Amino acid sequence: MLEVTSIKKGIVLDHITSGNGLKIFNKLMLDKVDYPVVLLMNVSSKEKGRKDIIKIENRIDIDLDFLGLIDSNITVNIIEDNKIIDKKKVKIPSRIKGIFTCHNPRCITNFDDSAFPTFKLVSEKHLEYRCDYCEEITSYKL
Amino acid sequence: MLEVTSIKKGIVLDHITSGNGLKIFNKLMLDKVDYPVVLLMNVSSKEKGRKDIIKIENRIDIDLDFLGLIDSNITVNIIEDNKIIDKKKVKIPSRIKGIFTCHNPRCITNFDDSAFPTFKLVSEKHLEYRCDYCEEITSYKL
Repeated sequence: MLEVTSIKKGIVLDHITSGNGLKIFNKLMLDKVDYPVVLLMNVSSKEKGRKDIIKIENRIDIDLDFLGLIDSNITVNIIEDNKIIDKKKVKIPSRIKGIFTCHNPRCITNFDDSAFPTFKLVSEKHLEYRCDYCEEITSYKL
Repeated sequence: MLEVTSIKKGIVLDHITSGNGLKIFNKLMLDKVDYPVVLLMNVSSKEKGRKDIIKIENRIDIDLDFLGLIDSNITVNIIEDNKIIDKKKVKIPSRIKGIFTCHNPRCITNFDDSAFPTFKLVSEKHLEYRCDYCEEITSYKL
């Protein structure tokens, strides 16, 4: 089995749904950084059979709403001195600010820079959000 | 430091030039497989300061010419029972068959399926290849 030893200081995104790892790696633009990063895909998981993991050897800010939107199974482990000092479970955000744009081409948020797109969750199952401006429903896809 | 313990059976692509790891991971379509794979980027290297590594927990066929074209620094380690049983150094291929197409839009290889594109290396420095059919020079970019 492939395993990665602990990191000294940084962030571990654990329990990523198998197959989502590379998409998250790309979204976080981890191929552009200059510190060590590791992507593990299809490693065995007690709970889920298989999972993906991302290890980041640096303390960076990660938008938990963004992660929750992509994959609400993720656990974020914060590592200091080889130990987990904090563990955060992400969840599907009830409100979204600026992560995606409104699908309605006539919505003011798509042509007026001062109208910043914000949304309210209306369906967890389908990841559907209602625009605060035009009330159009936008569903998020990774 | 991030490290990955050895794999039991499979392939390790070592000494990948730092930054090339994700491109090779994508070219080999390793996000589509169902066995464990690991991409390490920016890990420390005695020789080069930093390097990328790809570990594949499966014995798959990899085109060494293709790897040599992408990054001639790569070492391919074949693993069985946790041990390296074979080590291959890739090199820039002197002849290419079908990895890329001829840049000359009028070349017969671009419209006749029976004329398979083949090339001969003319410049290692610029990765330039001469088409066997039309003699146009095509330079390869990752």
